[in-house]
Amino acid sequence: MIVVMERGATEENIQNVIDKFIVLEFSVHRSTGVVHTVLGGVGPAELVDPAEFKVMPGVRECYRIMSPYKLASRAFKPEGTVVRFESAAAGKVELGGGQVVVMAGPSCVESEEQIKQCAGIAAANGARFLRAGAFKPQSSPYGFQGLGEKGLQLLRQAADQHGLFVVSEVVDHTQIAMMEQYVDLLQVGAQNMQNFTLLRELGATQRPVLLKRGISATIEELLLSAEYILTGGNYNVVLCERGIRTFETYTASTMDIAAIPVVHKLSHLPIIADPSHGTGRRDKVTPMARAAVAAGADGLLVEIHPDPDRALSDGAHSQRPEQFAELMAQLKVIAAAVGRSV
Amino acid sequence: MIVVMERGATEENIQNVIDKFIVLEFSVHRSTGVVHTVLGGVGPAELVDPAEFKVMPGVRECYRIMSPYKLASRAFKPEGTVVRFESAAAGKVELGGGQVVVMAGPSCVESEEQIKQCAGIAAANGARFLRAGAFKPQSSPYGFQGLGEKGLQLLRQAADQHGLFVVSEVVDHTQIAMMEQYVDLLQVGAQNMQNFTLLRELGATQRPVLLKRGISATIEELLLSAEYILTGGNYNVVLCERGIRTFETYTASTMDIAAIPVVHKLSHLPIIADPSHGTGRRDKVTPMARAAVAAGADGLLVEIHPDPDRALSDGAHSQRPEQFAELMAQLKVIAAAVGRSV
Amino acid sequence: MIVVMERGATEENIQNVIDKFIVLEFSVHRSTGVVHTVLGGVGPAELVDPAEFKVMPGVRECYRIMSPYKLASRAFKPEGTVVRFESAAAGKVELGGGQVVVMAGPSCVESEEQIKQCAGIAAANGARFLRAGAFKPQSSPYGFQGLGEKGLQLLRQAADQHGLFVVSEVVDHTQIAMMEQYVDLLQVGAQNMQNFTLLRELGATQRPVLLKRGISATIEELLLSAEYILTGGNYNVVLCERGIRTFETYTASTMDIAAIPVVHKLSHLPIIADPSHGTGRRDKVTPMARAAVAAGADGLLVEIHPDPDRALSDGAHSQRPEQFAELMAQLKVIAAAVGRSV
Amino acid sequence: MIVVMERGATEENIQNVIDKFIVLEFSVHRSTGVVHTVLGGVGPAELVDPAEFKVMPGVRECYRIMSPYKLASRAFKPEGTVVRFESAAAGKVELGGGQVVVMAGPSCVESEEQIKQCAGIAAANGARFLRAGAFKPQSSPYGFQGLGEKGLQLLRQAADQHGLFVVSEVVDHTQIAMMEQYVDLLQVGAQNMQNFTLLRELGATQRPVLLKRGISATIEELLLSAEYILTGGNYNVVLCERGIRTFETYTASTMDIAAIPVVHKLSHLPIIADPSHGTGRRDKVTPMARAAVAAGADGLLVEIHPDPDRALSDGAHSQRPEQFAELMAQLKVIAAAVGRSV
Repeated sequence: MIVVMERGATEENIQNVIDKFIVLEFSVHRSTGVVHTVLGGVGPAELVDPAEFKVMPGVRECYRIMSPYKLASRAFKPEGTVVRFESAAAGKVELGGGQVVVMAGPSCVESEEQIKQCAGIAAANGARFLRAGAFKPQSSPYGFQGLGEKGLQLLRQAADQHGLFVVSEVVDHTQIAMMEQYVDLLQVGAQNMQNFTLLRELGATQRPVLLKRGISATIEELLLSAEYILTGGNYNVVLCERGIRTFETYTASTMDIAAIPVVHKLSHLPIIADPSHGTGRRDKVTPMARAAVAAGADGLLVEIHPDPDRALSDGAHSQRPEQFAELMAQLKVIAAAVGRSV
Repeated sequence: MIVVMERGATEENIQNVIDKFIVLEFSVHRSTGVVHTVLGGVGPAELVDPAEFKVMPGVRECYRIMSPYKLASRAFKPEGTVVRFESAAAGKVELGGGQVVVMAGPSCVESEEQIKQCAGIAAANGARFLRAGAFKPQSSPYGFQGLGEKGLQLLRQAADQHGLFVVSEVVDHTQIAMMEQYVDLLQVGAQNMQNFTLLRELGATQRPVLLKRGISATIEELLLSAEYILTGGNYNVVLCERGIRTFETYTASTMDIAAIPVVHKLSHLPIIADPSHGTGRRDKVTPMARAAVAAGADGLLVEIHPDPDRALSDGAHSQRPEQFAELMAQLKVIAAAVGRSV
Repeated sequence: MIVVMERGATEENIQNVIDKFIVLEFSVHRSTGVVHTVLGGVGPAELVDPAEFKVMPGVRECYRIMSPYKLASRAFKPEGTVVRFESAAAGKVELGGGQVVVMAGPSCVESEEQIKQCAGIAAANGARFLRAGAFKPQSSPYGFQGLGEKGLQLLRQAADQHGLFVVSEVVDHTQIAMMEQYVDLLQVGAQNMQNFTLLRELGATQRPVLLKRGISATIEELLLSAEYILTGGNYNVVLCERGIRTFETYTASTMDIAAIPVVHKLSHLPIIADPSHGTGRRDKVTPMARAAVAAGADGLLVEIHPDPDRALSDGAHSQRPEQFAELMAQLKVIAAAVGRSV
Repeated sequence: MIVVMERGATEENIQNVIDKFIVLEFSVHRSTGVVHTVLGGVGPAELVDPAEFKVMPGVRECYRIMSPYKLASRAFKPEGTVVRFESAAAGKVELGGGQVVVMAGPSCVESEEQIKQCAGIAAANGARFLRAGAFKPQSSPYGFQGLGEKGLQLLRQAADQHGLFVVSEVVDHTQIAMMEQYVDLLQVGAQNMQNFTLLRELGATQRPVLLKRGISATIEELLLSAEYILTGGNYNVVLCERGIRTFETYTASTMDIAAIPVVHKLSHLPIIADPSHGTGRRDKVTPMARAAVAAGADGLLVEIHPDPDRALSDGAHSQRPEQFAELMAQLKVIAAAVGRSV
């Protein structure tokens, strides 16, 4: 922590800052300049908010030197994390390796027929995971809330029939144990990125977690949320960029494609992209999927539906079967251009 | 729902939209203009996302006519909601009435001594509620997480001694019953504004709820989250503006003061303001408290601490005792200027 | 400028940073810590972008210690700037003094009749300035672009008849000399806040300038734009908060009311607020005007129109005559509550 | 324009809206529904702001049906615009055709030596335009402001020697004629996107214009600014996505990569991307350049410098020569993957 004092700061002001450092168990180094006195504190930086110093009398500015996260930082595992999945039905797949892993499926499980069709489309085109929600967080209480555990059963069956792994959203910590029976990769939705109770409980399992960035979360906050899971001992965390909220309204949100290479620099965790929620518009999913892979995404989460016009939820950004086939064909070329496969 | 067709939309395109309306159980009205055909659908509008229509072939735009919320709308209770509190120790207070209700206290209960001092300061200056967290959602897993139920006991005792009501944050639905023993007003924090499991469970109690706006939530989304609680049968909901996230970094967030009169127009629910979290800077709390009351806020949530420099959390925006006394003195004048009392 | 090196920075990395400081004519101070080496550079800080250091090998972070602006900073004139106006017709008025100065008028001069009516309404209710545009920057080329110099003549006449000063927007530096014949306070619109050619030319006059914050400008950028005018020798600068662009769409923009006390802390320049453009909704102008004055605004810019439904521009947020009378009545009470007059 | 009346709107309310339509020379169509009356107006929609109707008594909502721009819309030229350049020194190049056109160079012309080196690097790696500023809009008045016309002369010479076209920023309308002597493509910077005087004057030339999106401009506003140029008769307009301002601060701005396919849908104008300003970080330029091309960008604007650590401006995001060579090598592969060449 570095504290820069104002030009006219008194000796008392300076001493107060030093005292505060000592209370916080930091060791302090003082550098008296011509204009400004600068105090450097070394200690458990992530416990202290720089704002605590900023408001002290005579303080001009305060900066945190060290990252507020440790286990999520690239320095902790410079070679990068690879999250591995293996099963008799679906074989092996690695997230964070050479393959761009595609996860496809509908917003929600609606019926046995629908999820089976989706699984067929996903598998036929090279997706490795079947995605679908059974518990649906909807901003309106009147929206379709999902089929619950029954939906998870249908999802698992459909995935197994087509040799796919399963990814599905967990919305509450009391459901984790039940969901682990059906789901290979537990998704934390954007609205729950700072549901710390949920994150902590997920840290206590060994089931891989897909953590989506909140729509107004900074990259640092995303990594801090990952840190919650990692500190519990679960290192199988995959991040997901799904767009942030800005003033632009043509698309549902603004995909922060740059977050992909930034996360790769700051952290060892794999990161995938969700161009379906990121754009909210079916016809923009393919170009944004290409962009994400070109920027280095380790995978994609894509919504598909056999008949999007009749989907109970999120039909607007679901790909029709033929669109998804075309998307996958294009991805193969882009992935090859960045030295990867799909 | 109004769907405007493109200039060159075919009869088939139009029929598809009409069919979709019928599937959704809307009645449809068609208006064929010189340039554009316009289709109006009347039905359970809040169930349908306009984006579903926007992506259909031949559709230019789609607009939702009716609010997606009903119970939270001003039309549902034009005279406005007043949330009433009464106890032997603290007397009576009304949120949404003539009084601007001030809730003051530290970020967290840290010790018996600290919370008693805060209660004393709060009561002596005219606050009606003692606020403090016992379960603290922190963006970092290394931050102070609160004293838990022990903290609630200390909070209740301190409040009772000084004739104050208690407001404290609930972070998980499994804690509601336990918290009801100690807390008069259950606060839902900004990070949990879309924790729908929590909202639904709060709808099943009759304990008043203070619902904070998420840092990137629109006013409509805030009202939809309130709707979750109201649909459960709990009508004692108070909203709170606490700043939204923008590009400006001098303050911790940007207080959307206009949200106060906007909520008063759109909804019957009371709304208070939190200038402490809204600014993140101790010296900006008083002017923003004045601004909020001048704009019509029904109350304020203010952080105070007997010794902010030693606070375990959020000291940067906590008021010192003498600052809080001055704030309350100024509020009395402003409240009178808008025809209210403090 | 403070540069914090990475934990593993080499001696060569450190030397490169020192060399860069020397090239930039900074004197350098080195502090070798247990974990991080910190380099402090003292020199013409405002010339250098911290990003220049941030991307150097081995650099962890870089912070600017000194404000990038000097003449606009509070330290330059701790007692605050008062901008004075005086004329035979309108008397004396001070911006930045005890009076909350109200500037009222229509978006555009439309006709002699209309501007005279507006002047009458403004004067009768206590406004001191008549505002109206003669050159109208419209985001669409098809919008009404104003009456030009003819409009300024009508504006001046109407103001003189009613004892008002004149404020009007200058959109191009080639018009400054012409406009000085008619206008007491030259307004720079939000879109031109970073039109540096215009700012520089305004620095060369002595006519007071009203500088509006751009819709996505930080407070620091606003002060830097003021610095452009001040460095030219024109110290008569008044700032204006008019809302910033966020994801909230109910209001036209989000008024950053906190910017008022923040500017008062960082700078000696007066700051007023524009609740008409800030909200874009006629019925939200009065509460936001109250809020701005409660937060310490030195004045207000309010749009009024004798018949807003027939205004050629911005009718949606123009106050009707009776609304404006009510607004002024309320402001008098609020201003008194913060120790000022209207 | 569609106006939806409130449930309880009176016949007088409705008549007032109809009257307003008639004043505006719209023809009106009335549709009386069970719940809401809907009024459709057909007329010169782009002249009217929907907010004008929204604030009328009894009005629930108002929507604009038609785009506010015409000449910039895809419908005006469905086959797309190709902007062509041809000279003896540089040959032919097309913006909006099969080639992804790269424009490279330093932020500013600093010296004859520096710009020649840049031209050499640009040409050797396949760029077709040399970019550099001679008039530099800097947010601080103390920043380097450029060499002026002398800089343009050096730029032209360097470009001619290496067979490159020239792109450079015009910051003021009075310089257009002078700049046309040296510059093939006149750039309008983000800060000037709504400098309507400048746009209008550029509409009066035939010189191609590169219009950058403002940092808080919507895509619609960008197209409206293009419309200003097009209405003057200059159809040679190229758009540029360069990042928007959001709450994320790790990168200088957030590149809205989705704007590329969105502009291609809404408009016939070519669009390029500027990953240098878009990220502000040298090491993020290449992945974002790849992403932009993968999303369909018609070209790129990239900052390069022979010695970025000693650049007078924007060195932080300038590519070193060897980085640029690598970037171009990667772009060739990505361009091929989307069926284009570099």
